[in-house]
Amino acid sequence: MARDNGDGLAAIAGRIGVLGSVVLNIVALAIYLRGRAAAEKQASKKVKKAAAVAPSSGKPPVACDSVINLDHGDPTMFETFWRGPIGESATLVIPGYQTMSYFSDVGNLCWFLEPGFEREVRRLHRLVGNAAIEGYHVLVGTGSSQLFQAALYALAPPTADAPVSVVSTTPFYSMYPPLTDFLNSRLYRWAGDANAFDGDDYIEVICSPSNPDGSIREAVLKSKSGKDIHDLAYYWPQYTPITRMLAHDIMLFTVSKCTGHAGTRIGWALVKDKEVAQKMSKFMEQSTIGVSKDAQLRAAKVLGAVTDGYEHQLATAAGGDANLLFHYARQKMAQRWRALRAAVAASGIFSLPDEVAGFCAFTKDTVTSNPAFAWLRCQKQEVEDLESFLRANKIITRSGTKFGADQKVVRISMVDTDEAFGIFVNRLAAIK
Amino acid sequence: MARDNGDGLAAIAGRIGVLGSVVLNIVALAIYLRGRAAAEKQASKKVKKAAAVAPSSGKPPVACDSVINLDHGDPTMFETFWRGPIGESATLVIPGYQTMSYFSDVGNLCWFLEPGFEREVRRLHRLVGNAAIEGYHVLVGTGSSQLFQAALYALAPPTADAPVSVVSTTPFYSMYPPLTDFLNSRLYRWAGDANAFDGDDYIEVICSPSNPDGSIREAVLKSKSGKDIHDLAYYWPQYTPITRMLAHDIMLFTVSKCTGHAGTRIGWALVKDKEVAQKMSKFMEQSTIGVSKDAQLRAAKVLGAVTDGYEHQLATAAGGDANLLFHYARQKMAQRWRALRAAVAASGIFSLPDEVAGFCAFTKDTVTSNPAFAWLRCQKQEVEDLESFLRANKIITRSGTKFGADQKVVRISMVDTDEAFGIFVNRLAAIK
Repeated sequence: MARDNGDGLAAIAGRIGVLGSVVLNIVALAIYLRGRAAAEKQASKKVKKAAAVAPSSGKPPVACDSVINLDHGDPTMFETFWRGPIGESATLVIPGYQTMSYFSDVGNLCWFLEPGFEREVRRLHRLVGNAAIEGYHVLVGTGSSQLFQAALYALAPPTADAPVSVVSTTPFYSMYPPLTDFLNSRLYRWAGDANAFDGDDYIEVICSPSNPDGSIREAVLKSKSGKDIHDLAYYWPQYTPITRMLAHDIMLFTVSKCTGHAGTRIGWALVKDKEVAQKMSKFMEQSTIGVSKDAQLRAAKVLGAVTDGYEHQLATAAGGDANLLFHYARQKMAQRWRALRAAVAASGIFSLPDEVAGFCAFTKDTVTSNPAFAWLRCQKQEVEDLESFLRANKIITRSGTKFGADQKVVRISMVDTDEAFGIFVNRLAAIK
Repeated sequence: MARDNGDGLAAIAGRIGVLGSVVLNIVALAIYLRGRAAAEKQASKKVKKAAAVAPSSGKPPVACDSVINLDHGDPTMFETFWRGPIGESATLVIPGYQTMSYFSDVGNLCWFLEPGFEREVRRLHRLVGNAAIEGYHVLVGTGSSQLFQAALYALAPPTADAPVSVVSTTPFYSMYPPLTDFLNSRLYRWAGDANAFDGDDYIEVICSPSNPDGSIREAVLKSKSGKDIHDLAYYWPQYTPITRMLAHDIMLFTVSKCTGHAGTRIGWALVKDKEVAQKMSKFMEQSTIGVSKDAQLRAAKVLGAVTDGYEHQLATAAGGDANLLFHYARQKMAQRWRALRAAVAASGIFSLPDEVAGFCAFTKDTVTSNPAFAWLRCQKQEVEDLESFLRANKIITRSGTKFGADQKVVRISMVDTDEAFGIFVNRLAAIK
């Protein structure tokens, strides 16, 4: 671990080890109180170990001359928030004997859904007001990309002669084509830009705010037999004003972009139709025999801590933004966008989508949107392939060609660490 | 939660809540020591909550007249072990700011593999000696069923005219056909019994010990262009003597059947060929953008506790079987098999596969195998559909037809709770 992290994290890992021992002593104490035999106590003491497992740290830290990788939307920006007070309340403890059964709730059509996770999902939507929950089924997936595939599986006619066409307005999320086509299914196939599609049978994916360009999207196709999947991964107050409560048939969300816990791999879907929800659940059953309970407990803990932070502030009228995830993250995103726009102005050869503002029903004020990605275009005639051009400047981005757009535009993550982002904007400003 | 579990678990949940608060106080204390600002401390105190999330309990508890569901191999039998001393050492603590990045090890071909999990996998195989690890790549999956699909994806020729045939000796694991076919891929298709297959191009799946019938299997097809996947979910000392260290090209394992943590959804693969390992990793990347880090940390903790238990005993020559998972579980399985064979003898209308014994290189003694499933056949002429017959007796099993066999045989889980198993054998003994 230390190899990737430097002394800082290694030292923290050491402290966690000490902390873990203390925690374990308390755990053991509590269990002793439950009346265990003396012999077991003795054995337990002997095999006791530090409770915390040193986890990986993600990407290695960066220095001034590092290659800066902003290809993925790796939401490590949020880590600072989770090292604060709310993060402390989100610590998860899982005893060795828990989460053993495959089943979470045998009475639920999604039998692997942890009731505590569903409760926190509903609580959070009730707080933010970004999506309707009454009358919706909640499904859990191993990230929202599994739920996207589950939705394709559920919506594709199983007995059609030809695969149903899956479309999305260009520029579309670069993962939609491979997620649709990697298994070469006869049920569905990627068919590109929704605006270029001609026909009545399709599945249209609407990502709003849009990954990659942050725009607010609506379905562009309107046939009775067509189906829609709304990917709302970025419909949270830090990225965009919450202008209304959405109530589409299938709405996908992910912990990754909401709280920053990408490594937990938990997404959820709000689904109106029972039969569609059942088929989506069946997909997860066949794909992975459900979804990790430990990951669901983690996600429940994290989402719960976010809602608790707001409820506590409402109750006490004290605390400040340090306890309010969306306020903290919005401020951070707004700072970054100001820095990026300044760097683009300083350079003079790039352009960005125009700033958009709106009234946010959650924060009750008019704010600009701060997309999770910058959709950066190069105005310089001789730069034909912007991804390669930036790579030569040690900035790794994702080419527009992967989103159905051209080579003179790239997608850049705005949610990486402060260090990586700082180096990136400085480097960008200096490119002439 | 209480709805499903009755007062017993609700009371335990209450105790966990109390325990959680104590643990959190310690966590908070340690973090204070790291020099946080006084303001943050104040805020932290206010938003603090119990650390433990009440998890689901799996299937509801059973009573004398309950329907007993032994359809799934839900390994809740192991829970008693994990409530003992080893379980205490396996408690996992995850602080709010951990496991946020998508990445675990950017230098590894399986970039989402937690180094700590890989380390514990290798340690455990070194201890048990059931599979070679030197020169093998370790991959992690959301359960071994995701790794099975990853292996199909990696082994199927991407440009073939027709899907490659996937075969397995009858009776085969009932999930292989739907796992292969549910997305109607053009890459591979289920082709049934390996013994009936004629051709050179295939993927043969060898499950050994076999789910459903516990037999030891070898590949039956021997073509140069054919490929094998070895599903070794049950090649652990509690189920079968470890007669040799296997060293096949692709070997699949799962925490579920090794330690009983099915709800964690973690499996692993040992893969010899680098290119195959890369393609399998690519499958997990596309299917679920990697595998939950929290689940991997949990699995690492649990596997580590198993190995620690054995290493500690070797070091101190004390402790007894209560700290030794495989010894504990073997004894338990052997008891259950004796009880089942007695019930079958008492009834007089059923039969089971013959008992098989062998020398176990891990425990250094000759032992009988104790399969995780009973493959129960009915000898009574008038019972044509054994699954329905047992269902009428409130015993839910899985029909032989789902395994490519006939209706007069069923698969029955031998790894459910003591309560469910006890009611089941009593009920079976009384059927005439």
